[in-house]
Amino acid sequence: MGNTTRTDHRDMKGGALEVDAELVDDISSLVESGQQGMVLNVVADLHPADLAQLISHLPFEEAKQLFAWLPAIQGGEILPELDDAYRGELLEEVKPVRVGKMLDELDTDDATDVLGDLPESLAEAVIPLLEDADDVRKLLGYDEETAGGIMGREYVSAKGSWTVAEVTEEVRREADEIDQMYVVYVLDDLGRLEGFITLKKLLLSPAHVKAHEIMRSDYVSVQVDLDQEEVARIMERYDLIALPVIDYEGKLVGRITIDDIVDVIREEAEEDIQKMSGVTGGEVPTDSVLRITRGRLPWLLVGLVGAGLSGFVIGGFEDALEEAVILAAFIPIMMATAGNVGIQSSSIIVQGLASGDLWSTDVVKRLGKETAVALINGIALSLVLAGAVLLLPYVSPNIAEVIHSSVLLAWTSGLSLLAVIILATVIGTTVPLFLHRWGIDPAIATGPFITTSNDIIGLTVYFLIATVIYL
Amino acid sequence: MGNTTRTDHRDMKGGALEVDAELVDDISSLVESGQQGMVLNVVADLHPADLAQLISHLPFEEAKQLFAWLPAIQGGEILPELDDAYRGELLEEVKPVRVGKMLDELDTDDATDVLGDLPESLAEAVIPLLEDADDVRKLLGYDEETAGGIMGREYVSAKGSWTVAEVTEEVRREADEIDQMYVVYVLDDLGRLEGFITLKKLLLSPAHVKAHEIMRSDYVSVQVDLDQEEVARIMERYDLIALPVIDYEGKLVGRITIDDIVDVIREEAEEDIQKMSGVTGGEVPTDSVLRITRGRLPWLLVGLVGAGLSGFVIGGFEDALEEAVILAAFIPIMMATAGNVGIQSSSIIVQGLASGDLWSTDVVKRLGKETAVALINGIALSLVLAGAVLLLPYVSPNIAEVIHSSVLLAWTSGLSLLAVIILATVIGTTVPLFLHRWGIDPAIATGPFITTSNDIIGLTVYFLIATVIYL
Repeated sequence: MGNTTRTDHRDMKGGALEVDAELVDDISSLVESGQQGMVLNVVADLHPADLAQLISHLPFEEAKQLFAWLPAIQGGEILPELDDAYRGELLEEVKPVRVGKMLDELDTDDATDVLGDLPESLAEAVIPLLEDADDVRKLLGYDEETAGGIMGREYVSAKGSWTVAEVTEEVRREADEIDQMYVVYVLDDLGRLEGFITLKKLLLSPAHVKAHEIMRSDYVSVQVDLDQEEVARIMERYDLIALPVIDYEGKLVGRITIDDIVDVIREEAEEDIQKMSGVTGGEVPTDSVLRITRGRLPWLLVGLVGAGLSGFVIGGFEDALEEAVILAAFIPIMMATAGNVGIQSSSIIVQGLASGDLWSTDVVKRLGKETAVALINGIALSLVLAGAVLLLPYVSPNIAEVIHSSVLLAWTSGLSLLAVIILATVIGTTVPLFLHRWGIDPAIATGPFITTSNDIIGLTVYFLIATVIYL
Repeated sequence: MGNTTRTDHRDMKGGALEVDAELVDDISSLVESGQQGMVLNVVADLHPADLAQLISHLPFEEAKQLFAWLPAIQGGEILPELDDAYRGELLEEVKPVRVGKMLDELDTDDATDVLGDLPESLAEAVIPLLEDADDVRKLLGYDEETAGGIMGREYVSAKGSWTVAEVTEEVRREADEIDQMYVVYVLDDLGRLEGFITLKKLLLSPAHVKAHEIMRSDYVSVQVDLDQEEVARIMERYDLIALPVIDYEGKLVGRITIDDIVDVIREEAEEDIQKMSGVTGGEVPTDSVLRITRGRLPWLLVGLVGAGLSGFVIGGFEDALEEAVILAAFIPIMMATAGNVGIQSSSIIVQGLASGDLWSTDVVKRLGKETAVALINGIALSLVLAGAVLLLPYVSPNIAEVIHSSVLLAWTSGLSLLAVIILATVIGTTVPLFLHRWGIDPAIATGPFITTSNDIIGLTVYFLIATVIYL
């Protein structure tokens, strides 16, 4: 356990994290042999994020044992760091009183997240035991993926008529409860947001000055029901570290901090990649086999049906294939290139739309650019392919036998490839743009949908051209 | 221009941004007709991020004109918000004195980024004109994608022997220069980092207390040459909003703020998606056709060669195809499923490795889980396919003619699909894990590489099984 020596600070020289397979093995045997004291000693200095990683790498029974040994404060701190499903399993058999004590260590937004994933009966038993039961009940009322669902109730507020000294006293009263404090919000008598004062400003202002004289009123705020992705985009765009959330009457109801948004950005990015890969539901390494299967099988079925349709296209040109079986050898090239080109175009469009750098009104301009790219790429690839086909008979006498005219085959394959590339580009560009206009998430387009339709169209075009030119 | 009315604050009710196609059109005609005063009036209230978006949507000549009209302070503020290549083009013909004035408005990290993308001769002319020329020169010495490359020199530092009153005075001296100030770093006499004091702590501590009595020494720091992705992971993991950067002697040389890391996370996520889509070099919507082509063509060529190899596999089984042309109809199914399964497994592995939730030592455990998933999915899909094949002759008499035994064809296609799914899963799981062990970025595996090898192996297995069972 050489890498767990007590250190006052963490100097991440090589970016090495403190938890590794060796430590997991060591802890695992200590837990197995019941050495509670030693285990707690070793993990006492770990950051909650590291301890959470350590626990989720232990065999599940040992993870439960270690979790049961932890003091409530340390157990609470690791909860927000665990994956949702795993956390639910870990907490299932824990007594409500202990869960309550652990949640009291957390900010209300984190406590709400944990409660939201617990079995309802357990959550119901825990909530009345919490110090912030009212706040948590309020937060549980909001959709998990909105501003209300990710905000916390930990903020400091003041009235505009207060002096700097009074505001500072309010900060002192709340200091223990609120770890992440960067600003004080200024409210009117009805609780409506009027402005904010940074702690820097507060620190540098004379004690007798009134809050409304030093507050800034050029704040950015969001409504409580705004989608978390929009919240993330706004905090990113305006470089905010804290964002006040208001209700329909303009009253301040919570605040969102940047660390929660960083998690949202990471999760959304991972989900986008999974969606592109045909995985739904946000799969994580700790998921069970059945859970993983549930997220993957539907897309494979969709893909199978799509590929079956491509198979029917090929079956429909069976006569052509009977006449010239060599045509089958070009099927992978048409399919792969149509797929690759379509994914290139569509993923760039989807990204541009998501970041706001591209608008769905840009369709004509964008299509022009994409078509120009497709022409250049298409001509280059077609020349390469046609050239290779012309060389084929010299490479292999077997192949020479089955080709009745390598010139015609070169024309067939080259022209088909060019047509396929242009069509796939047009589909890959326009489909996401129109989906976006119609209010449908264009990200679904980058998955199997565009690939499948490009395959079908590509193969059809190829066999049609082959029938005309080669046969 | 109804949506550009002057507002003191932004209430992002529907997440609507202030810039849209209508505003772009309005500004475009105003610029064209030379209405400098009106244009500047309209854009005066826009946040730099919004103004940058507006400009990059204008025709390029008008964008240059508007940019030339802007006061240096507003022009400077939008620079960090523009895409690198576009910014370079926009600044190309601007006089060094004006560029210098604009960069003086920026933090040193942003100024360095802008300078790094300018033509060398322009950068050389600008640097001596800057207020922070020394700082910027120092920052330009670091690799762009390391902690040194993204850090700024804007931080407040104090000595441990100073009183709270003295530290506060130091904060006051730096307040104008440093927008984002959350902590004061405490250094020893040699400039080495000893700890930090949050502004909250400073605000609430009596004036006579010494800095070292209230500082926290459990800080996280990084070395100046650490890769930016590692920096991002550390700030995310430990929920930091500012991170001190130290050199080899432990001396504080800069600080990284979370807003820059949010940009890194977003960029890296977008690049990962582009890499998966076969696009290199970080394409953005403002890129030129040639630049886009350069990022896409290489992968299409790799894909073409890979698909060509698949074509050779098919060509190698020509005799089998001559005998039973119906076998060609299953090529898309084998290819598509092998590809889909491989991407599902590999993208989950790559994500797990990147987040640290999965270790390359987990290979056996993970392979077991993936194989179990593959077995369930494989059996399900194979049964669906075999069932469909058995029904085929009833659907179409044409098809019935060319199938000599639908039972044998069902066995062939079902068993092949099962084998293909298991093989593709094993490849999709093990390749990224081993690449990671060997120190190669496993993300390259999720691109065309795994798809191509799965295609080749899948088709080979399919035709071998078909030769044995069906022919």
